[in-house]
Amino acid sequence: MARIIILRIGHRVFRDMRVTTHVCLTARAFGADGVIIADREDKVVESTIRDVTSRFGGPFQVQTGIAWKKAVKDWKNSGGKIVHLTAYGLPLPKVLPEIQDLTYDMMIIVGSEKMPGEVFKIADWNVSVTNQPMSEVAALAVFLDWYMDHQEFAHEFSDAQVRIVPSKSGKEVQQVAS
Amino acid sequence: MARIIILRIGHRVFRDMRVTTHVCLTARAFGADGVIIADREDKVVESTIRDVTSRFGGPFQVQTGIAWKKAVKDWKNSGGKIVHLTAYGLPLPKVLPEIQDLTYDMMIIVGSEKMPGEVFKIADWNVSVTNQPMSEVAALAVFLDWYMDHQEFAHEFSDAQVRIVPSKSGKEVQQVAS
Repeated sequence: MARIIILRIGHRVFRDMRVTTHVCLTARAFGADGVIIADREDKVVESTIRDVTSRFGGPFQVQTGIAWKKAVKDWKNSGGKIVHLTAYGLPLPKVLPEIQDLTYDMMIIVGSEKMPGEVFKIADWNVSVTNQPMSEVAALAVFLDWYMDHQEFAHEFSDAQVRIVPSKSGKEVQQVAS
Repeated sequence: MARIIILRIGHRVFRDMRVTTHVCLTARAFGADGVIIADREDKVVESTIRDVTSRFGGPFQVQTGIAWKKAVKDWKNSGGKIVHLTAYGLPLPKVLPEIQDLTYDMMIIVGSEKMPGEVFKIADWNVSVTNQPMSEVAALAVFLDWYMDHQEFAHEFSDAQVRIVPSKSGKEVQQVAS
């Protein structure tokens, strides 16, 4: 299966720690291969996500501090395609049939209100999950859910130490035999 | 149609401002009726969301500082049902057929790792959007998308001043005639 990487643009160290962590957790839970946090190194977010991955399984990569233009250029040079999630884009239900071809490596760009205008041009598709002021975390979740055909509910993680056991009204966690 | 209200538990003023704002934006964009932010008054989040609603349309209610136990008790007394979104719960695809009855008023509880244990008992359904460490924003988005049968892409907002026009590669905003 093709690779799926999220490029998070506009991260501010400390201020955006929680929202960027949500972006990473969402990417991992829905079966993406990794997140690149552009332009700012953030060791706190990196270590939070590495800790989750070592306990609950992977593989899942997180890199911070790579210039967004370099990340995009490298991706395009290697033949990958780019989706930019934005409230200004074309509605997901309209675009999905055209892009849901899992032979492409796909980079999904998410950001904030202050996304550089160039991103709208370099993206192969600008896609909206509603044309309303939105959370990039919510947009990413719904995009991945649709794009991966709801496979997040069956996704298997490798090398997990613990596993949550679905429960009607409790909190059940199981140690995984190694 | 039945009412849908999100109850956000565990909000910390300032620290959680951004994530709670994402919860509210997601609730609004996906067509819920409002959000109650439990236990802590937060005028900053309230005014951010009221501003979005007055520009992009509503109706959408946001209340802060109501004790979560009171909010839950009032909801149950009025005949409403409660879903609690948690990584420990039963998978959404399994629970959905049972709960997707839009004649119920539905309260959707979202929170953090430190959710009080009682919430697991008072909820009519504990529902997981993947059994992985997750973002409550992502879980809420996917839950609402499935529960509302993807109607967020057709949702009409009343009394909007501006409207985003879907675009292939630009940012187009239209003034709405009043």
